[in-house]
Amino acid sequence: MKAEILCVGTEILLGDIVNTNAVFLAQELARMGISVYHQSVVGDNSQRLKSCLQHSLEQSDLVITTGGLGPTYDDLTKETVADLFGLEMELNEESLRDIRAYFKKLNRPMTDNNIKQAMMPKGAIILKNENGTAPGLIVEGKGKAVVLLPGPPREMKPMFLHGVLPYLSRYIQGTFISHNIHVFGIGEAQVESMLRDRMEALTNPTIAPYAKEGEMLLRITAGAETPEKADAMISPLIEEICGLLGEHVYGVDVGSLQTAVVQELSKRHLHIATAESCTGGLISKRITEVSGSSQVFDCGVCSYANEIKQRIVGVSEETLARFGAVSRQTAAEMAAGIRRLSHADIGISTTGIAGPGGGTPEKPVGLVYVGVDCPWHQEVLELKLSRDFPEERELIRWLASSHALYLALQTIRKYSKQV
Amino acid sequence: MKAEILCVGTEILLGDIVNTNAVFLAQELARMGISVYHQSVVGDNSQRLKSCLQHSLEQSDLVITTGGLGPTYDDLTKETVADLFGLEMELNEESLRDIRAYFKKLNRPMTDNNIKQAMMPKGAIILKNENGTAPGLIVEGKGKAVVLLPGPPREMKPMFLHGVLPYLSRYIQGTFISHNIHVFGIGEAQVESMLRDRMEALTNPTIAPYAKEGEMLLRITAGAETPEKADAMISPLIEEICGLLGEHVYGVDVGSLQTAVVQELSKRHLHIATAESCTGGLISKRITEVSGSSQVFDCGVCSYANEIKQRIVGVSEETLARFGAVSRQTAAEMAAGIRRLSHADIGISTTGIAGPGGGTPEKPVGLVYVGVDCPWHQEVLELKLSRDFPEERELIRWLASSHALYLALQTIRKYSKQV
Repeated sequence: MKAEILCVGTEILLGDIVNTNAVFLAQELARMGISVYHQSVVGDNSQRLKSCLQHSLEQSDLVITTGGLGPTYDDLTKETVADLFGLEMELNEESLRDIRAYFKKLNRPMTDNNIKQAMMPKGAIILKNENGTAPGLIVEGKGKAVVLLPGPPREMKPMFLHGVLPYLSRYIQGTFISHNIHVFGIGEAQVESMLRDRMEALTNPTIAPYAKEGEMLLRITAGAETPEKADAMISPLIEEICGLLGEHVYGVDVGSLQTAVVQELSKRHLHIATAESCTGGLISKRITEVSGSSQVFDCGVCSYANEIKQRIVGVSEETLARFGAVSRQTAAEMAAGIRRLSHADIGISTTGIAGPGGGTPEKPVGLVYVGVDCPWHQEVLELKLSRDFPEERELIRWLASSHALYLALQTIRKYSKQV
Repeated sequence: MKAEILCVGTEILLGDIVNTNAVFLAQELARMGISVYHQSVVGDNSQRLKSCLQHSLEQSDLVITTGGLGPTYDDLTKETVADLFGLEMELNEESLRDIRAYFKKLNRPMTDNNIKQAMMPKGAIILKNENGTAPGLIVEGKGKAVVLLPGPPREMKPMFLHGVLPYLSRYIQGTFISHNIHVFGIGEAQVESMLRDRMEALTNPTIAPYAKEGEMLLRITAGAETPEKADAMISPLIEEICGLLGEHVYGVDVGSLQTAVVQELSKRHLHIATAESCTGGLISKRITEVSGSSQVFDCGVCSYANEIKQRIVGVSEETLARFGAVSRQTAAEMAAGIRRLSHADIGISTTGIAGPGGGTPEKPVGLVYVGVDCPWHQEVLELKLSRDFPEERELIRWLASSHALYLALQTIRKYSKQV
């Protein structure tokens, strides 16, 4: 079947927000084996929306829209679809009850214009919204289907997963399964040159590479009659790739470096602590993002000023005076110091120049030291992150935090080898 | 004039990459006052690309495409446009020289298929590519224009700015100026109901509301002959809205809460410090995101474990035992404690239950206390963030950090009133 995605919203059209809804829907449909032939964005304008929808329905069997289901006068998607299919609008009592209940739960007054959100084209399949007031809906006719979803991603995504996936499953034969291999510390070009022959030759399963900031994801997808059969097709390929890429693979289906770190620490009942300068709390933020991280993480210090590095984290005055805050020595003492202060098993540290200011010829923007300290291993890495990414403060900080997490992960795995 | 953006690339269609090109182009065109009526994405498929382009040219005067200018067989944009306009392809000698020179500079061998990149529709205006091998081009005909740009953003953006902007300036009369009013702590619906009459009545300047996670942005845009005249039209409206929304406006054109906090601290030569539990370093991460934050921020402690709250931040054992870590009293002692420890002027703190686990009937997921402590003000806010966003750990943490930054901002502004 041919599908297309139509996102409604002037704020996307004007470039005020990035269209992440299209990415999510395209990925989900691709995973099901439904081909997306076209994506488009149109503003909150009745006439243009109608023309777009008409065009989409001519060329595709399934159109998924996001946005334009809100309570205000410029939310028009439902009305336009009803018009195109020649359906009357009617009040859906159940939706109205749900909307009333939602406002009651929030203890907020419901205004009259919210009633508009319970008006539905006659015969539509209603999709409940667990995270907002606008219900979604599916309208069928003329051998076509239009799925209307709300615009906010935190409403749209659960509605797609809980309401639309089961509906679409009728169009699917067999199943598609994907597994993700997470790769760090090796360039995309190098991975591609190692795997190119395999990537080009394989059709089922397939290998798709995705570059993310500073890391890489290899998605292996197989289609088969059952999930078990798909998995059996994928397993040997995962094993092969993990063998090829060695310790650059930091996990399979693990989600993120921080999740891998928390999992590996939990397994071994180890605790980690962070002393951050240039990353400013980003590492502790990433670790504590992981639910359950309180089992392995007690303490992080963002020692942004030298005085704090010295007085609280315990870097020696002499080290700071002789080598400076951005130095191998300071990173080492920060990692050792936070471990002492926190009583954790492993200390990690960052100190560097994230820019845009503060660089010198000797210590340019992007120079970052990442340290680790524990009884079985001490190491400091020198990173030069600005060569690739001039003046991108947030990117430098992100990459520095990723290197620190990857260094922690390797260190944790060394521990297991010793015991 | 009516414009639309057409992005060519199967990787966007499948959701493998986010379409940031469309965002960039939409913003740039909006800034020039060129209305973008439609955005679309199509795969690397000749027939569908042709159908899309044809449709775009029927409804718009200007079509800007990205992607499909590469050397391989599935790069088809130029050929498709030539076909639609009935133009022959011919070798452009200058482009070929540029491509040869580019490979020579990189010291890489040039392959034969790169010659394809120098083939151009007859009569096209060529746009030099300073960051890659694919030249861009502009094709005119039938009162329409198509601008073809390469797909990689680091090639596309400079080409747009240096080559396309000067070309488009012929279509522009006057200028458009926007200013952003940043709003926190008041619901979107409430703001809209306060401003609805104005929003509907105004045509120049206009007010456009954008909801972001936990905050709101009101964009005021005016078109006029000169930037000065546009600003003069906007100023009274900004004043009016700021008057209406009072202290909920945290800044105009300030970018983010953390930037506002850093700016206000800098002005007054004040320092801030953070003691974070549930936000896990997110507040210090947000503060240090701002370039120049080292002038106002020295120290943050992520005291995730009770033992750290007590031993390092200085929360009393009795408080923790009697009221628990997630309590008004602990938040107050954390804010006071981090101020003592860091010697900063202002201490802010968070402690709460971010979920998904750890909630109880008395202290459910989403219960967060946010504290501030300084000589002229002490306050603790109780937030119940889960009512709106059940089980969204990252969103709860984000909102908690925003409330803490907003509380800090209000506190800093109280200081100025005292002196």
